[in-house]
Amino acid sequence: MNDKELVAHQALQYVSENMIVGLGTGSTANYFIDALAKRNKEENLKIRAVSSSVVSMIKAKEAGLPIIAMEQIKEIDLYIDGADEIAPDLTLLKGRGYDLVREKLLARSAKKFIVIADESKLVKKIGDNFPIPSEVQPFAWELVKNILIKKGTGDIRINAAKDGYAITSCGNFVLDFNYPEKSTEELNALLSQTPGIVEHGIFYNIAHGALISSNGKVREIWKN
Amino acid sequence: MNDKELVAHQALQYVSENMIVGLGTGSTANYFIDALAKRNKEENLKIRAVSSSVVSMIKAKEAGLPIIAMEQIKEIDLYIDGADEIAPDLTLLKGRGYDLVREKLLARSAKKFIVIADESKLVKKIGDNFPIPSEVQPFAWELVKNILIKKGTGDIRINAAKDGYAITSCGNFVLDFNYPEKSTEELNALLSQTPGIVEHGIFYNIAHGALISSNGKVREIWKN
Repeated sequence: MNDKELVAHQALQYVSENMIVGLGTGSTANYFIDALAKRNKEENLKIRAVSSSVVSMIKAKEAGLPIIAMEQIKEIDLYIDGADEIAPDLTLLKGRGYDLVREKLLARSAKKFIVIADESKLVKKIGDNFPIPSEVQPFAWELVKNILIKKGTGDIRINAAKDGYAITSCGNFVLDFNYPEKSTEELNALLSQTPGIVEHGIFYNIAHGALISSNGKVREIWKN
Repeated sequence: MNDKELVAHQALQYVSENMIVGLGTGSTANYFIDALAKRNKEENLKIRAVSSSVVSMIKAKEAGLPIIAMEQIKEIDLYIDGADEIAPDLTLLKGRGYDLVREKLLARSAKKFIVIADESKLVKKIGDNFPIPSEVQPFAWELVKNILIKKGTGDIRINAAKDGYAITSCGNFVLDFNYPEKSTEELNALLSQTPGIVEHGIFYNIAHGALISSNGKVREIWKN
């Protein structure tokens, strides 16, 4: 069992009967989906699952989990997902995968949101290893880019696909930019309040806990 | 000349040659579009206009203004638009008209944004006369509604059309809710940071000035 699979299995301890569980997207989240489906079947837990993306929905259906739609629920009991970066205060960077809105909405709607990752995802500050992605409506990107540059961000580029620009599951572009001389809190507020930005990859004050694996061991970090 | 037409004509004094001017949407903004088109023709000002909605774009084209697209510009010189409510600190409530993102984006991208209105739009506090509209992605509305209610908003309902729900120009729903026991600043931050809310009707710290008409007279309010 590799380190990603290990934290995914550890996360199962937070699952109990009749829960509505939110499913993340990505390689670590996929291990959790497999483990959850197996346990749900073996122990007849009557779990219902809500997916943060079409990809994880298909994955979950194939694994045998009952799926319900976001429109059918008011909140969820548990959300388990990976992250691209995890800061010491549990601020996360997510969204390399173009499903930012659904991921953040499930995270915010969960009674408990636990991020699972191997130790390589730990950073001192969000933006240390990756640019920060912002999902932007196509008509807005030139104006948004200019607003952000004026506020001191570094170079901004649109995420490219092979034959043009990459498109999110909501039909938008993704702007990537470097981390400016701003605190995470300031940057979170700036991006949230810029019109044309539908969502961004900073998950500030949302995660309740983290399970972090390293060389076959798991440690927990909890928000006070 | 009625009071709406009067402020629209007063706003012309801020227009000069070669400007890129953003056009608002609504009855007062329509008077400005007509007045601007007339002056542009008479004085050959070489104005280019950017519209906040398809409605104002068609209006402007018919009036003879040259239109350019949002994707072609980085910022605009002047944005003139009406509002549903105007507070003493120039916080505005807008968006009864389903073009929130484009309106706020032009307002934020303008070197000067002047709101024009008759005196009936003045309020002590945003939300005094109207519910606050939030543009919400259709898949998100149940979860968003629950997040907002937990944060203390009043009743929330989806804006209805004759045969179902009203749809914004970006294909989203509009949630209306009453003003909670929060400051405008807090509410602005809450709505901006709620995933699934694409944009909302509070224009906080965006307007630079206001022209307000009453009984044939216009007074100006400027942000310090």
